[in-house]
Parts: sequence; C-alpha cells; structure tokens
Amino acid sequence: MTVTQAAQRLSAMDRVGLLTHVRPDGDTIGSAAALCLALRAQGKEAYLLPNPEITSTYLPYAAPCLAPEGWQPEQVVSVDVAVPGLLPESAAPYAGNIALAIDHHPSHSYFAAESLVDASAAACGEIVYEVIRCLTPITPAIALPLYVAISTDTGCFAYSNTTARTHAIAAALLETPLDVSGVNKALFRTKSRVRLQMEAHMAAHMELYDADRVVVMTIPLSLRREMGATDADIEELSSLAALVEGTDCAVTLRELDESTVKVSLRTGPRVNATEVCARLGGGGHRAAAGATVHGTLDTVKQAVLAAVQEVTGG
Amino acid sequence: MTVTQAAQRLSAMDRVGLLTHVRPDGDTIGSAAALCLALRAQGKEAYLLPNPEITSTYLPYAAPCLAPEGWQPEQVVSVDVAVPGLLPESAAPYAGNIALAIDHHPSHSYFAAESLVDASAAACGEIVYEVIRCLTPITPAIALPLYVAISTDTGCFAYSNTTARTHAIAAALLETPLDVSGVNKALFRTKSRVRLQMEAHMAAHMELYDADRVVVMTIPLSLRREMGATDADIEELSSLAALVEGTDCAVTLRELDESTVKVSLRTGPRVNATEVCARLGGGGHRAAAGATVHGTLDTVKQAVLAAVQEVTGG
Repeated sequence: MTVTQAAQRLSAMDRVGLLTHVRPDGDTIGSAAALCLALRAQGKEAYLLPNPEITSTYLPYAAPCLAPEGWQPEQVVSVDVAVPGLLPESAAPYAGNIALAIDHHPSHSYFAAESLVDASAAACGEIVYEVIRCLTPITPAIALPLYVAISTDTGCFAYSNTTARTHAIAAALLETPLDVSGVNKALFRTKSRVRLQMEAHMAAHMELYDADRVVVMTIPLSLRREMGATDADIEELSSLAALVEGTDCAVTLRELDESTVKVSLRTGPRVNATEVCARLGGGGHRAAAGATVHGTLDTVKQAVLAAVQEVTGG
Repeated sequence: MTVTQAAQRLSAMDRVGLLTHVRPDGDTIGSAAALCLALRAQGKEAYLLPNPEITSTYLPYAAPCLAPEGWQPEQVVSVDVAVPGLLPESAAPYAGNIALAIDHHPSHSYFAAESLVDASAAACGEIVYEVIRCLTPITPAIALPLYVAISTDTGCFAYSNTTARTHAIAAALLETPLDVSGVNKALFRTKSRVRLQMEAHMAAHMELYDADRVVVMTIPLSLRREMGATDADIEELSSLAALVEGTDCAVTLRELDESTVKVSLRTGPRVNATEVCARLGGGGHRAAAGATVHGTLDTVKQAVLAAVQEVTGG
C-alpha cells in the first residue's frame, strides 16, 4: 500500500497498540513513539505495547508512550519488524492479528493484514515521517523520536544507507527546535570514564600479526574487575579494534572466566569473519562474527590466528 | 555582501588563488577545493595557494587543485579564514591583497577588500555551496569536497551547529553519486596506531575538576616525540575529551614547545567556549574554541580552569 493509504488506514483506527522488535534499537522505538504521538494528536488513544528489553539509551523516547498495565488495543500496528519471530514474547497475543506493518527491511515477510514496506528507506523512521506528515503537523515532540530513529539507523548519517531523502527528512525535522547535539551526544558521543580507561588499556596493548593486517585487542577479566566495569561499559568494545588504520581483520578477545574467551571479529572483504568463527564453533555475518572458545587468552588467540590463516589461505 | 554579489564578483575574476587557514581542516580544504573546481568549470584558471600543513587526511581533496611551483594568482580569495593571523606563512605575499573573503566565523575581522560572512552557517562549505550554485551545476567532483567541508565541521551532522540548512545542503549534495560511507569511514572511523596510543595515554591520564564537569586531557610534547606522531596523528585529538560522560567542558592542552600550549575547548550550553578562550587571547565558537597560550602545561591548565570559573560564575 502507499503512504497515503497507510495514513488513511491509521486515521480510521482507534486504541492503537504499537509493536516494536526484540533488542529494540532507536529506529523501532523512535518510529513507534513518533507514530504514537501523531495518533494521539489526532485525538486517538495510542500506546507502545510492552517490550521488556528497552535499554536506558532509548527509554527516554519510549517513556511518554508506554501502555499502562492491562491496557488492551483495538488495533495493532508493528514498526520496523521484519518477521513475526522478531517480536518480543510479550507480543504473542497480538502476533496473529496485526492490522498494519510499517517496515524497511528487504526481508519483510508480509505477516500483517496490510503492509507499508519500503526497502529503499535507510530507517523505518523515514517511512513513518512520511505517514505522519499526512496525519498531523510535525511538532517538536514528534520530531525528536523520528530524528532518533533516523540517526540511529544511519550511524548519524555516516553509513552507506544514508541518502538525499534521509538528509531532506532530517532538514524538515530540524525546522522544529531540536537538540541535535544533546541527542547525538547521548547516542554516539558519550563514553563512561571506565570505558575510556578500558579502551586505553586495550589500545596500549594491541598486537599486530600477518603483515600488520590483523590487529588483536584483549580484555582480561582482571582488567574488568579492577576497573569495576559494568555490562554497559564493555558493550560494543569490539568496535575499537575495527578503527585501526591499515588493518582489515580486527580481533577482540574478552576473557569470560579462567578457561573461556569470547571472540569478536570485524573484518574487511579479504577475511570472511563467518568462516573464521565457524572454525571456532561460532557464527555471524561476513564482516562481523563471534564465537565463545574454551581456553586461555593466549591459546584462544593462537587458535583465532590459525583460523584466519586457514580461511585467507595465508 | 550577498551570496549573489560574491558569485558575480567571482565570475569577473580569473587566475584565482585560494587561501586556506593554518592547521587546515576539512572545511577550509573542502571549501577551497570545491570553489576551485567550480571556477575551473567556468573556464577560469584556479588553484589552492600553498599550505604546507595539509595532512594526509585532507590531501586527497586538495590534490587536484594544488598550484604548480611558481604559479602566481591574479586575484586572491580566502575561505574559512577568520583573521589574517590564521593564514600560513607562505601566504604572506598575498595577505594584504585579498579580493574576497568567504567565512563563517563570528570573529571574522573583515580584512579583505570584500567579504561574504555568514556566522549562522555551520561550515564555510554551506556558504560556498550557495555561491557555487550561482556559478555552475554541482558535479560529483564539486559535491565531494563540499560534503567533506560540511561533514567535518559538524562532526558528521552531530554537533549543535547542525541546522535544517546543513541537512538540506547535504541532501542536495547526495543527489550526485557520493560515497558517503567511504568518506565518513576515512574521516571519522579510522585511527592510526599512533593516534590510538596517544588517545590511550590521554584517557589514562585525564583529570576531572569542578564537580567532575570539567575534564582535562594533555598531550605533552615528549609523548608526541616518543611516539613519532605526525600532524595527522594528532589532528582533532581534542574530540576525545568531549566524549567523557557527565562532563560539559572538555579541555585539551597540547604542548607546542617548552613555553607554549595550544588550548582546545569543547563545551555544553553551561560554558561559553568563546568567552573562556577570549580571556586566554583566543576565539572560536560557542561550543568549540581555542587559544595558544604562553606557559607550561600546568600553568596553562590553571589559567584555563580559572577562566572557566570566571565565565560560568562558579
């Protein structure tokens, strides 16, 4: 269906419950919150249906929209959900009865009664913006979660999915007073002191192999304990090694306990990360994969380097 | 003067030499390169005048435009230069005879015969885009350095200077084929090993003041020498301190020699960085400013902290 048809369909609904996907990111939360506020601006009742995994990063945008205990929707709409398997368990009662799905994943499985899918959109937020524009003026309260949706899914306009349309929508959102700097600082430009210290240790002790194309960084358990690092402090620490100029195989080894190491790989086109991690009992994507391996930091490092050599034929 | 008048003025010129500022960033290089290519598209001769400090980060964008040895301009235009003191030494023969200055710094000193200054522009590249649009169609070759100019000065659209206009221009630039992801990876997601080691040292030794709202990081000359850091390795190192969670005044002190320290400030709304740096003999923008101060790392640190206290009334 078209954007206009989806807007008409939404205009005819009331008591709308919005479904977001598991491990919710800024796009699913931001898109759902913006749509929720737009429906309310039309005088409707609308809420985000429960998603127990919303993290503190995105909770501020979801908070004004969370459904009260026991609230039941009349109509259910999903946003940024590619397949029903990506709905949280708490969405089970609604999964078979979704009136409208709005999504941008090429793998969308058309599980809803009606679907507005545009795989050319960098973020589901781009589509939701176009729908909302048919419904109600873009207020600052609506612009904020839409900006979060688009900014998150494009890595703050840096990823290859960013298009002229993405920037044109951002321009429209910024016509309302919007604290771009505050939002982006919270999303992309804030590191805890503990995290900075952990990164400092990792960078200071990085090792290079295979004609300096492979970089290895390690996170010993002792370091984590010594610094009192939380899960949030070590989240996505494997992205640090991927920054090292001239390398195309970034290995991060995190000691889980005395005999187990979590391996994370970020690779360029030369090294298939999935194949390397498959040899270590793990899996993932071509450019990002992982495995949990029995051994010490040193023996696991040797195993990873050997697997990289095998896969690259080096 | 207006954008249209500046465009008319440029149209009347030939053999145009473009001046960029010392420690050239993406905005001065990107703006100059784009303007150079636009003037050439009009059939004129145009070159970037020598700037010995262009780093490997921005050289690719300047390279097609560098003046051959001994080339002499008929007319000189400066871009992103606030005051003549920010011109490289090699620009001395032209400093007194600049026909047109295009700039976005509020502290612009109107040193040229004519000036197009717009302090509301996030990047000089925004103004140059508007001028070029009056001169010639935006080709991919022109769009690339303009994108670099705007992306650099807004921290990839994340800083508070980013406006609807910034995104609208980015949208227009992305209408041409542009490798956003490749450009942004090179600009923002690649770090040399030396840079990572420098950052590690800075993070490991950071200090917090004023109820942990002010973070100070230092780059001693000895560290730079010890690591054999190039200018590219230390470029934009001041952005590291701005990441520290819970702080809103990031101070980076770089020792230039035994008695001179370069101060860089990145601040939140509470602290006016220009006012702080004005007290130290420098200038800049509200959220990002700098100064070069006589003294040791320690005495300059005390001077900066005192200036911050004065400005915030703390």
